[in-house]
Amino acid sequence: MTLHSTDTLWLEGMAFENTTDGHQFTVDADSKFGGQDKGPRPKPLLLNSLAGCSGMDVVSILQKMKQEFSWFNIRVEGQLGDEHPKTYESIKLIYQFKSADGLDDAKVRKAVNLSQDQYCGVSAMLKKACELTWDIEYLE
Amino acid sequence: MTLHSTDTLWLEGMAFENTTDGHQFTVDADSKFGGQDKGPRPKPLLLNSLAGCSGMDVVSILQKMKQEFSWFNIRVEGQLGDEHPKTYESIKLIYQFKSADGLDDAKVRKAVNLSQDQYCGVSAMLKKACELTWDIEYLE
Repeated sequence: MTLHSTDTLWLEGMAFENTTDGHQFTVDADSKFGGQDKGPRPKPLLLNSLAGCSGMDVVSILQKMKQEFSWFNIRVEGQLGDEHPKTYESIKLIYQFKSADGLDDAKVRKAVNLSQDQYCGVSAMLKKACELTWDIEYLE
Repeated sequence: MTLHSTDTLWLEGMAFENTTDGHQFTVDADSKFGGQDKGPRPKPLLLNSLAGCSGMDVVSILQKMKQEFSWFNIRVEGQLGDEHPKTYESIKLIYQFKSADGLDDAKVRKAVNLSQDQYCGVSAMLKKACELTWDIEYLE
């Protein structure tokens, strides 16, 4: 077991400063909920966590497969329910690539599958809480 | 239902830039996993998301209860398992307060309970994936 420890310090209003792995960043509410929009809302950090965790897997696996890309973005869409506690009822990851030489779609699918089924711990956790789907897009 | 959409753009190596609610911040792996530590790891963002979501609840409820504090920090400790996919097996939130006038412990406990049981959507999701506990500390 490995212990991960983070601190989230109240600044003022609804703003908090996270200290994580020695790095700081602020979260805040928007003005409708008493905040000043000094940083992102905390809930979508779940989507960032998922994208980063799976994105690192996919970069690493595609490099081993000698698949080169010039641009890679992961869009994540979460559908938030209306009832308290407000949770994501479904989350969709869209892995978007640009590549000068073209990418082998079968290999890209294999890389994403390996991440989603075997490696990505954030995915494994969020799948227990909501529906999680993914798609791949090749952009010009 | 409300749609939350985020982008996580690959920069280089294992570094990605998140764009969330119009704000940017970077995540990266450490050098052991091909990164350069340009930002936090993605997985602990789950802990930041949890702390921020619940922290905003608690600030808001304590304000309504006229409970004043000068300092408030949420330490989150996640125990990460060793087997792939590596998930948090347990998460503990420690709500830490400093207050010149003292805080009514029963009211603080009620505020945290309301967040954990009724309002915090991140808590509700992560509870489905692992054990989640909390404690309160009053510091000098």
